[in-house]
Amino acid sequence: MDAKSVIQQVKEQKNEIRQVYWVACGGSLVDLYPAHCMLMAESTLVESGIYTSREFILATPKKLGAHSLVILCSHSGGTKETLDAAELGLSKNAAVVMMTNHPGSPADSDQWISWIYPWGDNLKTCEIPSGISLSLAAELLAAQETFEAYGALMEGIEKMDEIVAKAKVRVRRELCDRFAQLCTKHPFLYILGSGASFSQTYGFAICSLMEMQWQHCAYIHSGEYFHGPFEVTENGVFYFLQKSSGKCRPMDERAEDFLKTHTDCLMVLDALDYGMDIIDPAVRDYLDPVLFYPMNCELRSARGKVFDHDVDYRRYMGKVAY
Amino acid sequence: MDAKSVIQQVKEQKNEIRQVYWVACGGSLVDLYPAHCMLMAESTLVESGIYTSREFILATPKKLGAHSLVILCSHSGGTKETLDAAELGLSKNAAVVMMTNHPGSPADSDQWISWIYPWGDNLKTCEIPSGISLSLAAELLAAQETFEAYGALMEGIEKMDEIVAKAKVRVRRELCDRFAQLCTKHPFLYILGSGASFSQTYGFAICSLMEMQWQHCAYIHSGEYFHGPFEVTENGVFYFLQKSSGKCRPMDERAEDFLKTHTDCLMVLDALDYGMDIIDPAVRDYLDPVLFYPMNCELRSARGKVFDHDVDYRRYMGKVAY
Repeated sequence: MDAKSVIQQVKEQKNEIRQVYWVACGGSLVDLYPAHCMLMAESTLVESGIYTSREFILATPKKLGAHSLVILCSHSGGTKETLDAAELGLSKNAAVVMMTNHPGSPADSDQWISWIYPWGDNLKTCEIPSGISLSLAAELLAAQETFEAYGALMEGIEKMDEIVAKAKVRVRRELCDRFAQLCTKHPFLYILGSGASFSQTYGFAICSLMEMQWQHCAYIHSGEYFHGPFEVTENGVFYFLQKSSGKCRPMDERAEDFLKTHTDCLMVLDALDYGMDIIDPAVRDYLDPVLFYPMNCELRSARGKVFDHDVDYRRYMGKVAY
Repeated sequence: MDAKSVIQQVKEQKNEIRQVYWVACGGSLVDLYPAHCMLMAESTLVESGIYTSREFILATPKKLGAHSLVILCSHSGGTKETLDAAELGLSKNAAVVMMTNHPGSPADSDQWISWIYPWGDNLKTCEIPSGISLSLAAELLAAQETFEAYGALMEGIEKMDEIVAKAKVRVRRELCDRFAQLCTKHPFLYILGSGASFSQTYGFAICSLMEMQWQHCAYIHSGEYFHGPFEVTENGVFYFLQKSSGKCRPMDERAEDFLKTHTDCLMVLDALDYGMDIIDPAVRDYLDPVLFYPMNCELRSARGKVFDHDVDYRRYMGKVAY
């Protein structure tokens, strides 16, 4: 499956797309956010909205209709809210594209366009949801209007594989031990980020740490930090900053400058220092999250080893009724 | 100043408005979110985007132009990012409306439409940003398309004053002491909410608690809770749930059901039980935040007394360079 032919198929069905709604839950929602940011910033024609699946169902936009494209992701293929949201899209005559890791699951349905993606280590960015969603947004932009950075984005998606592979080795060597050790000393930490990467700030908090490590933490937008949250900063409070390499970097730099002198417990993962310098600045903001996600995985794994807490262990998810 | 004449003036300038961008920082941004949610849900014509001011400047939507309306709020009147964002709007030929509490401040400028609002206890909802922003959105909807709930919303804004006055008394009596006591026993808490009220979930965390009380906490969307964050829940972990009364309530109810049996430390503020039953269900979701904000204020004040931490005390904001 490829994004160009999916968008061609959507365009044949619906002629013009005027709204794109990105709909999923938790970690799957995280992977859709950079493409939402890209459409918000780059399109002169299409509006973009992003929703956790249940809110899409309960607070459905009135515009959802025959010129809408609903792009969803259910990793397990059985996320009830996401399946219901896809059905809602169909019932409103929207085009529906569903990504899932599980062939044969309810998400893999002839009712809509299903895109089965692989999962695991060392996959190509173009094969997984973070790359697929950006490609879908880029193809839609290119098909309906001009998108000057199309080539830069597609080339960037290719380049990310090597950047990620190299960055993993360095993060293991340079950051993992210290991160895990700091977690043993801090029952709680703050994670900061901005722009499209704020998705991975959120994902690091709610998926990698809360879900997979039972580690208390909070996610804060680097730009918002100065409008309230910075008052809790002091020595002894642990901050992890995802410093992005693209257009939103000035917000992260400002947060870093303050944190450097107002806490003795700061870790920074600087995307520009971990390989993003070879990406065209016009698309760095959208691709930084592709770098941050596997680094989050390295960090949580390192913590898991120190705490003897397997990242795949759950006490509630898929185990109890809720 | 009234919302109808502001929208008339905007319409005279720009003829048709196709995009509304809500732009502010911290607590001011919180007050704009419900109106953004209302436009997203209710409009068939206008798209809506919400940004922290610096991100609006760094990741400006390409659509920002002669059919855009930028609605900003700077409480102090001097928030640099917000003033820069207003200038950016002007430079792109957009209509610009700026709310501020400070007459004579840079935000109070003839360059754009300035709306000076009062601040303090016992003000009418229609006079303050949470009410003004909803009114602006409602008047825009009514001026350009049909908005069936217009009457219900305007009537609801009037009714909120009495609901808030009564709820304050009850929250003081029923919740404040327990909240403050729980804070003495818990270095950290989670705050949950959904829909338009998620703005007040965020605001309670970053403004009332982090900024004004130096209380560590995290804000979690009730719908997203089951897709990761609930794995940290156990006895001894403190949760505060803002249970909304409108269309998104099922997400809060589900979170409450789980929390009731998986932590021994849960507080619930149920909007429906605190007066929202007299509001038309069609607009409850947008008005719940108007209730939650003053309740957040009561709770933080109660904590402040127990901790001897004045809610107006800051160590960084407006005091050091950043």
